[in-house]
Amino acid sequence: MRKLGRFLPAATWLPGYSLSVLHKDLLAALIVTIMLIPQSLAYALLAGLPAEVGLYASMAPLVAYALFGSSRTLSVGPVAVASLMSAAALSQVAAQNTADYLLAAMLLAFLSGLFLLLLGILRLGFLANFLSHPVISGFITASGILIAFSQLKHLMGVTAHGDNLPELAESMFAGLAQTNVYSLLIGFAVVLFLFWSRKGAVSLLQRFSLSKNAAALLVKAAPVVGVIATILLASGFGLEGKGVKLVGEIPSGLPQFMWPNFSLELVRQLAVPAIMISIIGYVESISVGKTLGAKRRQKIDLNQELIGLGSANIASGVSGGFPVTGGFSRSVVNFDAGAETQMASIFTAVGIALAAMFLTPFLYYLPKATLAATIIVAVLSLVDFSILKKTWHYSPSDFFAVLTTIVVTLLFGVEIGVSCGVLASIVLFLYRTSKPHIAEVGLVEGTEHFRNIQRHQVRTLPQILTIRVDESLMFSNAAFLEERIYGDIAATPEVRHVILMCSAINEIDWSALESLEAINEQLQASGICFHLSEVKGPVMDSLARCGFLDELSGKVYFTQYQAFTALREQLDGCPP
Amino acid sequence: MRKLGRFLPAATWLPGYSLSVLHKDLLAALIVTIMLIPQSLAYALLAGLPAEVGLYASMAPLVAYALFGSSRTLSVGPVAVASLMSAAALSQVAAQNTADYLLAAMLLAFLSGLFLLLLGILRLGFLANFLSHPVISGFITASGILIAFSQLKHLMGVTAHGDNLPELAESMFAGLAQTNVYSLLIGFAVVLFLFWSRKGAVSLLQRFSLSKNAAALLVKAAPVVGVIATILLASGFGLEGKGVKLVGEIPSGLPQFMWPNFSLELVRQLAVPAIMISIIGYVESISVGKTLGAKRRQKIDLNQELIGLGSANIASGVSGGFPVTGGFSRSVVNFDAGAETQMASIFTAVGIALAAMFLTPFLYYLPKATLAATIIVAVLSLVDFSILKKTWHYSPSDFFAVLTTIVVTLLFGVEIGVSCGVLASIVLFLYRTSKPHIAEVGLVEGTEHFRNIQRHQVRTLPQILTIRVDESLMFSNAAFLEERIYGDIAATPEVRHVILMCSAINEIDWSALESLEAINEQLQASGICFHLSEVKGPVMDSLARCGFLDELSGKVYFTQYQAFTALREQLDGCPP
Repeated sequence: MRKLGRFLPAATWLPGYSLSVLHKDLLAALIVTIMLIPQSLAYALLAGLPAEVGLYASMAPLVAYALFGSSRTLSVGPVAVASLMSAAALSQVAAQNTADYLLAAMLLAFLSGLFLLLLGILRLGFLANFLSHPVISGFITASGILIAFSQLKHLMGVTAHGDNLPELAESMFAGLAQTNVYSLLIGFAVVLFLFWSRKGAVSLLQRFSLSKNAAALLVKAAPVVGVIATILLASGFGLEGKGVKLVGEIPSGLPQFMWPNFSLELVRQLAVPAIMISIIGYVESISVGKTLGAKRRQKIDLNQELIGLGSANIASGVSGGFPVTGGFSRSVVNFDAGAETQMASIFTAVGIALAAMFLTPFLYYLPKATLAATIIVAVLSLVDFSILKKTWHYSPSDFFAVLTTIVVTLLFGVEIGVSCGVLASIVLFLYRTSKPHIAEVGLVEGTEHFRNIQRHQVRTLPQILTIRVDESLMFSNAAFLEERIYGDIAATPEVRHVILMCSAINEIDWSALESLEAINEQLQASGICFHLSEVKGPVMDSLARCGFLDELSGKVYFTQYQAFTALREQLDGCPP
Repeated sequence: MRKLGRFLPAATWLPGYSLSVLHKDLLAALIVTIMLIPQSLAYALLAGLPAEVGLYASMAPLVAYALFGSSRTLSVGPVAVASLMSAAALSQVAAQNTADYLLAAMLLAFLSGLFLLLLGILRLGFLANFLSHPVISGFITASGILIAFSQLKHLMGVTAHGDNLPELAESMFAGLAQTNVYSLLIGFAVVLFLFWSRKGAVSLLQRFSLSKNAAALLVKAAPVVGVIATILLASGFGLEGKGVKLVGEIPSGLPQFMWPNFSLELVRQLAVPAIMISIIGYVESISVGKTLGAKRRQKIDLNQELIGLGSANIASGVSGGFPVTGGFSRSVVNFDAGAETQMASIFTAVGIALAAMFLTPFLYYLPKATLAATIIVAVLSLVDFSILKKTWHYSPSDFFAVLTTIVVTLLFGVEIGVSCGVLASIVLFLYRTSKPHIAEVGLVEGTEHFRNIQRHQVRTLPQILTIRVDESLMFSNAAFLEERIYGDIAATPEVRHVILMCSAINEIDWSALESLEAINEQLQASGICFHLSEVKGPVMDSLARCGFLDELSGKVYFTQYQAFTALREQLDGCPP
């Protein structure tokens, strides 16, 4: 059973499933379902898809993740950022509201599922680490702004489009004259109501002697209240005739299982977006999963998560859905409502299925402005510029990476934005390693410790130069070390011994080895001995293996203190 | 004058120029000119250009480098690898033997000059460090093989083409039946003669009482002997009528100065190849320059070299030439022949100009097979697979990068090859930093030194866990450290203090800072104190700045020894 649990995490909790857990999971599922209905419709709208696709993406994927995912409480389904990215990708290959667009969405989900599954099977979860936290924060903030902007069109009741801020602003400005006042009023009313519900409604409910937690949970249903109220308004006052755009006819019933359209051309066009959506979705999802897991001391397995999310997306792709991932707010609600196992997600899927079968006729009168308002309120909580301030104080290169990500995402769209962010982190990292911190060190009196002569009161001898490099020696910085040592030697002609203190050198690659050989020769030609100290085990092994230690004009000392004392005695023995 | 010398290195040697130096430079120029005439014709042929373009690329560029370059003895001009890369780039935009091809070659030289100049002005010479030595060696070896193969067609007297081994082999095989026996005989004879000249001719000349050095220098003229002999053969026996391909009509005189054709489309197509040719050429050139500079203790300025080579390529671009760089064999000959300053290069340019004016009629009868033989012999000395053996023993990731470069270059051509090589080095580097070496350390008895418990006999306490991370803490490895510490804690429940020994941590970026905060909280929740030791100055500064030190549950100790003794005493004071 334990072995099975490694591949099918559900096998670890399903056998011991008890009635008391069932009660908890059922309650959580009920609350999440109520929250998920408007959310799934809204995110389908955001992705440029018919509303029912949002419902379809909230059934099969939840069951797939429940079986294969490693988090007990993560709630999978359509989310804002992935929906925005899907819209950007799909608009490149098909026109909205066409069958091709829908088929492309399914293929996108399927491809991204396949990619995640592949990474999981190859155990490549570590790759997600290359997305640095600041880049992700910046990207999500910028995406939030783009999403909010893109929804303004629904609020205004006009047609606008674009994948970045300048395009959106231009097309919005052009549509300004066609603004539908009823849409705008409904939208703003819902936005205000939702914002109020977060604070005001909680204290209101507490007055009706509800506990604070229960009240906080109950207000998560506020969007549903907005949905019901505006449906009644729209049908009662015949707003459709006044130009308010409604969700309209939604086919009742469950999705049909079918393979997406594997045209080679389409696969080629959607492969890169699918990879990006997968990675961003995965990183978002594990950060939620980890946060919740830590609270209940449940471990998240990074590779199993890839398999869980991969299966969810494949399930979405074959059941008429679009890319899904673990959602932050929804998972927190699931957790707070007391969900104990992924059975809650299976019940949620059943709830959504019931909604798809019986509730769709009522959704005909739902104004699109209501859904847009829901999205705007949800994504504005993603927008957080504090990362700029924090990194500005802490590390200029992190700051620069975030700023690049935000600015490029806003100006040029999500795909270029996140690519530039990742590129910026990697280039800045390489740049920093190419100019490592190099310190001349001396003995701290009364200890065996050596520190930077510029920061500490230390003892040195003019005949002995000790250099500490605070970085592995690599192709990117090998030349830099050579320059530095030759420069120091030229400046202090008394030097007879150079010690390279290797305490921070974790690796010496082939290019750097060639540089060390050059330094050794060059120093020898000038009558200077070259020594090493505090060489780490693995580095020592490879230096011995390639024969460098035989060529070395000096010795390798175990500690810097031993090197310093031995060479000092040697110098005392034969005064210059 | 010193200030002027920073921008115009020629200003440092020109004013004190003496007659004795003039004699030396003149002699060197004479020898280099004799060597350069067949070389320049041959490399033009390799680049798919008319023979005279090789001569044009050996005049103005030499003068430009003489003024702006920082090496005293580097000999600039057409070289094998850059010519091959030019051919690959130009064949994408125009057909050989057309005026468009020629204009594109000029533009390519101009763009690559512009790029080098820009890097030099922005002082970005360090960028060349990202090409690791093994990748360059692998690339040059693979290019040498491609070049030798591509010249076999001229030896056989057939038309063949292709930018990679499979294409070349296929087109050669197809042309096998059309092989011209006379071409083949001439080609093989010259190849054998040139190989013999390297060893046999030197000892032969020594018998005529020439010094070994003089003999070695004299045999560099062997290609000219081959050229003259085969010209006589071809004209005497009327080989043109027997189907032997000759160089044919070469316009006499100097090149016309003119701007290349700046069509935006062409610039777009040639920009990436121009950047690649520049970088490879630059790296080749500085490695020659450094080698020669070290012998005479003359310093090479990396940024000034960019400006020197940039000017040379711009000069080539406006005087009917193609991309040039510092050539290895030619520079060594220049050096060995006694060149003292770049005046030797200016004299060489004059020599080539004289050749272009008066010698071209004689070159009509030169068989192309002779030039191909010259190239084959020259490039086979570039082929060196020993780097594979060396890196295999030293570092698997360097080995993998070289192998990738060689295989991809041979199979898919030069541009993809060098890109994959660079990419492989960077990805492997990131991969290694993402899984840093982490050691649990203990006290080496009788010292204040802490080493890996798995490699050394050390003292530890069950209540104190000391972890040393041999890498900067970065976005790529932050998660890895968290996993490791939580794992160790779970395995040893007695632990009450965790010390992170930071002697090898040169930087902590924002993502890693967030991980440290998480570790601190998590440990605190389990009643464990988190301490740091041996934190480097710059890291300490940033940890203090962001407030992490205030949150830290434990202390920061100056040395690991102090941390260990202080915590041990504390534990003794209040036994568990």
